[in-house]
This record gives sequence, C-alpha cells and structure tokens, in this order.
Amino acid sequence: MKAAILLTGDEITKGIVKDSNGGYLAERLTALGFEVQSIVVVPDSKEFIMREIRNALDRSDLLLITGGLGSTFDDITLQSVADYLGRELLYDGNYHSALVESFTRRFSREAPAGLKRQAFVIQDSVQLPNSSGSARGAFIRTESNEIVILPGPPMEMETVFKEALKHISLPSATFSRTIGFVDLTEPEVEDFTEQMLSKFTDVKFVTRVRYYSGPTVILTANDESALEELCNLFTDRWNKYIYTTSGEELVDVVVRELRDRKLTISIAESCSGGRLSALLTSVPGVSTLFPGGIVSYSNKVKSSLLNVSENTLRQYGAVSEEVAFEMAAGTEILFGTDVGLSVTGIAGPSGGSDFKPVGLVCSGIRIGSSIKTYTDRFKGNRETIQLRGANTVIKRLWRLLWNEYYIK
Amino acid sequence: MKAAILLTGDEITKGIVKDSNGGYLAERLTALGFEVQSIVVVPDSKEFIMREIRNALDRSDLLLITGGLGSTFDDITLQSVADYLGRELLYDGNYHSALVESFTRRFSREAPAGLKRQAFVIQDSVQLPNSSGSARGAFIRTESNEIVILPGPPMEMETVFKEALKHISLPSATFSRTIGFVDLTEPEVEDFTEQMLSKFTDVKFVTRVRYYSGPTVILTANDESALEELCNLFTDRWNKYIYTTSGEELVDVVVRELRDRKLTISIAESCSGGRLSALLTSVPGVSTLFPGGIVSYSNKVKSSLLNVSENTLRQYGAVSEEVAFEMAAGTEILFGTDVGLSVTGIAGPSGGSDFKPVGLVCSGIRIGSSIKTYTDRFKGNRETIQLRGANTVIKRLWRLLWNEYYIK
Repeated sequence: MKAAILLTGDEITKGIVKDSNGGYLAERLTALGFEVQSIVVVPDSKEFIMREIRNALDRSDLLLITGGLGSTFDDITLQSVADYLGRELLYDGNYHSALVESFTRRFSREAPAGLKRQAFVIQDSVQLPNSSGSARGAFIRTESNEIVILPGPPMEMETVFKEALKHISLPSATFSRTIGFVDLTEPEVEDFTEQMLSKFTDVKFVTRVRYYSGPTVILTANDESALEELCNLFTDRWNKYIYTTSGEELVDVVVRELRDRKLTISIAESCSGGRLSALLTSVPGVSTLFPGGIVSYSNKVKSSLLNVSENTLRQYGAVSEEVAFEMAAGTEILFGTDVGLSVTGIAGPSGGSDFKPVGLVCSGIRIGSSIKTYTDRFKGNRETIQLRGANTVIKRLWRLLWNEYYIK
Repeated sequence: MKAAILLTGDEITKGIVKDSNGGYLAERLTALGFEVQSIVVVPDSKEFIMREIRNALDRSDLLLITGGLGSTFDDITLQSVADYLGRELLYDGNYHSALVESFTRRFSREAPAGLKRQAFVIQDSVQLPNSSGSARGAFIRTESNEIVILPGPPMEMETVFKEALKHISLPSATFSRTIGFVDLTEPEVEDFTEQMLSKFTDVKFVTRVRYYSGPTVILTANDESALEELCNLFTDRWNKYIYTTSGEELVDVVVRELRDRKLTISIAESCSGGRLSALLTSVPGVSTLFPGGIVSYSNKVKSSLLNVSENTLRQYGAVSEEVAFEMAAGTEILFGTDVGLSVTGIAGPSGGSDFKPVGLVCSGIRIGSSIKTYTDRFKGNRETIQLRGANTVIKRLWRLLWNEYYIK
C-alpha cells in the first residue's frame, strides 16, 4: 500500500521552522509496511494545498496532512480538504464553548474570535482527540482513499497520529522488529542484514542511526516466525552489541537492568548541565531508584557538596578524569546510591584551550566502590556536546552492566 | 521571485534519514528574498523526479534539486534533468581520470567502475565545484527558469550551494525582524499585525508559536526604515509582552537580564528532572551566574539537602505550593544565590490521583528573600509536562524581572 505525506505551513517553506514531522511519519509509515511516495511541503495557500492533495491521492492509498489547524486566518487545511472533497464544514458549538471556557479560565481575559476556527469539522469525518493541545485531528474515508489530518506542532502531531492508527487501514498484517546496536557501525549492520536477507526474501529492512546511541535495523515481514528466526540469527552473531530487539530506547533498558539488580543511581554533572538527569528521568517510574542528581556547575559546588578536593581541582583542572573520579565518588556521600555517574567537560563555544579544547569531556561511572573514568572528544555545537556527554555515559553504563552481569 | 526545492532519495521517504537540506535551503532562499513555493521529497525514481521538475518549473523561477549525484545505480538526477530538458549527457574524461586517481591515492585499491557516473555533465550547464566531496553540482539557465543541482550530503550541499550563488539571479534586497511575545496568544498578535500592515503594504509577515514560550511574528520588507517604524508600533502597543525584537530565545534574554543586574541563580527541581537546569545551561557563558542546581527527586533529598520540613511534606504532599516555597528557599542555603527557582509536580504517566492529577505542577521563584509560588495543570505526555514545567518558570521569571525592574 502506498502513502503520501503533505506538510503545510509558511513557517516551513520560509525555513523558520525546521520540519521534523515528515521524517517521523515517513519512518512510522514505513515500519507499518507502507511505501511512502512523496513528502511535500507547501505554504498556507488553498490553491497549493488542493493541488497537492490531488497529486498525492493520484498515487497513494493513504494521505497524511499536517498543520494549518490553528485559530488564525492562514489555518486553512480543513477548508482545503472539505473543498477538495466537495463536503461541508460543520460548526461544532459544544467544542467551541469548551475552547472559550478553557481560554478564559487560563488567561482571565476574553477569548479571541479566532478560536471559532478550531470548532469546525468536515462532514462525515471522524474527530481525533488531541490530549496535548486544542486542535483536533480528523480521519476521512473516501471511496478509494483515506485521509488523515494532524496538527502541526510535533508533540500534538504524535499524540493525534496515535489516535489515527485506530482508524487507518493497514497493509496486510505486517510484523516488525527493531534491533538496536551499541558499539557497531551502520555499514557493518547493513552488510550482515543483506547477507541474511538473501535467505529471507519476504523480509524488508531499513537501517537508521539513532544519533546518540547507534544504528538500528527495522525488519518488516508478513511472516512473524521468519522474523523471529531472523532476530535469533542477529542475537547469535551480535549478542554483545544488541541492547534491544523490540525498539526500546537504550536508557529504558539501562533503567530496567538497574531495577532488576536492585541498584539505585545518582548523578553529578557539570558541562551536561542537567541533561544526564533529564535523560534518566525520561523513563517513567525511575523515582524508585533515582533519589536525585546535582548540577555542580561551579568548582565551589563540586568541593562543598561533592567533596571534590580543591587540590585536585587546582592540579588537574575541573575537566579531568581525576575530578570526574571524585565527582562519581561524591555521589555516594551526597545521595547514598549504589551507582553514581559523573560528567565534566567544555561545552563551548568559548572556554577551550589548545590543551583542553571545546568538546573535551571526562566522565566517571561508580558501581559500588569501583570507579572507572573516561575521556572523549566530541565534535559539534554546545548542545551536541552537552547531549553527547550525557548519552555516552548511559552507553558506557550499559556496557559495564552487560560485561559484569551479562544482560539477557 | 519564486523558488522550489526538490529533494530526492529513498532514504528520506523511508524516514531513515531525517532531511535537513530542505529547511536549510528554505531559510537561505527566504533570507535572499525568494518566496519558496514548495519543498518536495521523492524516492529515487526517474518518473517521480521528472514529474516534480515539471510541477516545480510551472510555478517557480528557480528550482533547486538535491541528491542523486553519487556513483550507485540509484543516482539518476542528472539523467532525469537532461531528459526533462531534452539535452545530452556528455562524458567528461578529464574529470573521470581525476576521480580515479584520487580514489586510488586515498584507498590504495582499484577504483570502482561506478565512479564513471560522476563524470557526466548536462549539455550547456555550468559545473559547480565541490571542495567537500566528489559530486559536482550544476547550474542551468533555460529561457524561463534557472535550475541548480546540488549533492545530497548536507556539508557538500552547503559548499556547492555557495558556488551556485555566484550564478543564481537574485531578488532585490530584503530585511527582516523577529518579535517574540510572552502571555499573548497567536490570534491576538496576528490581529494587531494585520491592522498595522494595512499601513505598511510593502511588509510581509508570518507568525509562528515557539512551543514553550509564545508566539513570534517575523516581518520582512525591502525598506529597512519601514520595518523599524513598524517595530516601534509593536513595542508601543505591546511593550510588557515583548521579550525580543531581534529573534532571541526567551532564556537568553532572562540570563542577560540577570547578568545586567548582577544576580546569581540556582535551581531545585523535582518533576522536571534536570530540564530546568538544562534550559538555563543552554545559554553560553551562564556559568558566571549559575553555580548549580539540584534534581531533588526523592523526599529524602528534599529534606536533607534543601531543608524542606518533613512536616510540610507530610501535611501538604511533595507536590504543593508549600513544598515549592521551601525548595525555593532551600536554594539559598545550598547554593547561596540571589535568585532560586523550584519545580515539583506529577509528570506521569502514573502517580496521579483525583485530587492531584498527572500534569499538576507547583513552582516557586525566589528573588532575594521574597518568594512567589504558582500552580499549573499541564496537558500532554510525560516529556511535555516536564518541559512545560521547566519553561513556565523561565517565563514567569522574565515577567517578575520585567515588573520589578522594567526591562528595556
């Protein structure tokens, strides 16, 4: 089955917003077994949108449209789709009242007239609820196609897309497995996959790289047992490089492994500035094993709260394995946990030197009383260095747990 | 003048590679004064590519095509453009020899036959050198259009695009200003902008919402003084809602205002799990005023490190304005800063109750010894609630600084 993606919005064609919805939807549709025919971005113009709806439906079974569901004059997606299909736009008074009430409660002033725009629905369409915002999505089935309308903000788009999946006709039962790798390159994964697939002609695959963990391969097939067999061949060959065969994120796996071993964990981070704690607290339920973390940005805080010796700071500098070691040790004093992680580095753009350049990051991992330290040099801008610093520690912690306890 | 962007590649339509070329080129073309009519992604299919070239040239003066210039069988961009224009593909023996020589020197093994693919040029086209890779770009002028062909890898694309700018016919000069608003909705901003623009017919605008701060309006014009005058009308009318007229992020403005007033700041956060510290440390140079923050995830850490009374925790619960108050107070004890921020809430997906549902977030802002507390109810998934919790505190801090010191 074929699918097309249509993204609307002047903010994208003008380059003000860098679109991420196209990539997200392309990946999800491919995993569901669709062949994506095109991803098209057009400005907020009814003429343009209607022309691209025609182009897309000519070549696809399913069309996803995002954006243009807000409350301003350039939000014309519903009108464009209704006109294209020759259907009415119907006013939903109840939803309008709910929107006005919610606005007044939140801002304590009169709701703008424009809110009414979000209270229209296309005749004979299914409304898709949006728990992340006020713009509902819509699902429409015509004689030969299905059309899904989604809001533009990525978080809302993802929420409503999940609702849409309850209605979309999917390609014949497709099964899918996502295998995630650490410490392996994409060409190695791809070579192996291609060799294997000569024996599994029904299976399709795509590889991609999760920027902060490693390559993944997404396998899809109509035959679940073939997929199972293929997965076993992967784990036989690459066991110590595979952290998931079910698409989990690496940090979710790490938190589960810690929980299974009844290990608590805490964090002392400097250059990553909160991103390591944020990564860990992205996992629901982590509070039972994570009492807390400290962003020890100044040397004074490193000394007073983490007990890093002023001598070490003076002798080796704040960005050193010696300080990373003492920070990791300090997490035990401050939080009393079994495991402690530390990161200290130079995120830039300034603050680097010939000897300690921007991108230099030292880190430490304490398990019980054993502490290992590491030094990395990351390329990229401030945010990339901060995120790589945080994610690399999680990758190393997975490796240590694997080596020590043989995960799986 | 109108422009269109065509991106080719299965890796994009399958969602394996998240495209960034479209956004880059859209932004650059808009800044140069072009109106981008569409950004289209198609798989590596000559039929698809030729169809989209036709669509694009129907509505644009300039067409940029990226991708499909490599040395494998699916690299068909040059052939597609040549066929569309009815021109020949000519073999460039000198370039072929140079490619083979360079490959052999670099890898010390025989060059693959496929290299020859990169040695063809479209009849009557200008070759655009590529100092970042081996695939040259091309510039073609027809009777009514200009076509630029660029390689797909972003670094190479940017290099060759700069070469293309030597040949492309540009629109007359354009100026732009970005105004950012807090505590105002997009329809309100848009209503005012439309009223104003009746007097400034030369100015164009687009609004967008920065998801965690508020709406922005981007004004573009050929006449810089008109833009200046219009900006003044905005600040006259909406002074207390405007945090920037030059496109800065809200957190950058807050850090600058703190620095100007010689105020230091620290953080005590629970449900936001490090995202408030991460937000603040996204600003380069913040280390001079931010000694650190604590992620006080457990009640024990709230008591032992931030001095939140066990009685308050028992009586009001960890998610309460009372605890947010004591956490904000505790930042002074722990870090000794002038300003202290606190966040405590229920990020979900579980842990909520009828009385304290998922999304309930309490926060506190201490400036000196004065502490204000707040309660919000956010919608969305765990990540949204965590990010909204963090960003809302920054928004409120900006408001307090504005009220207290009258920023600007």
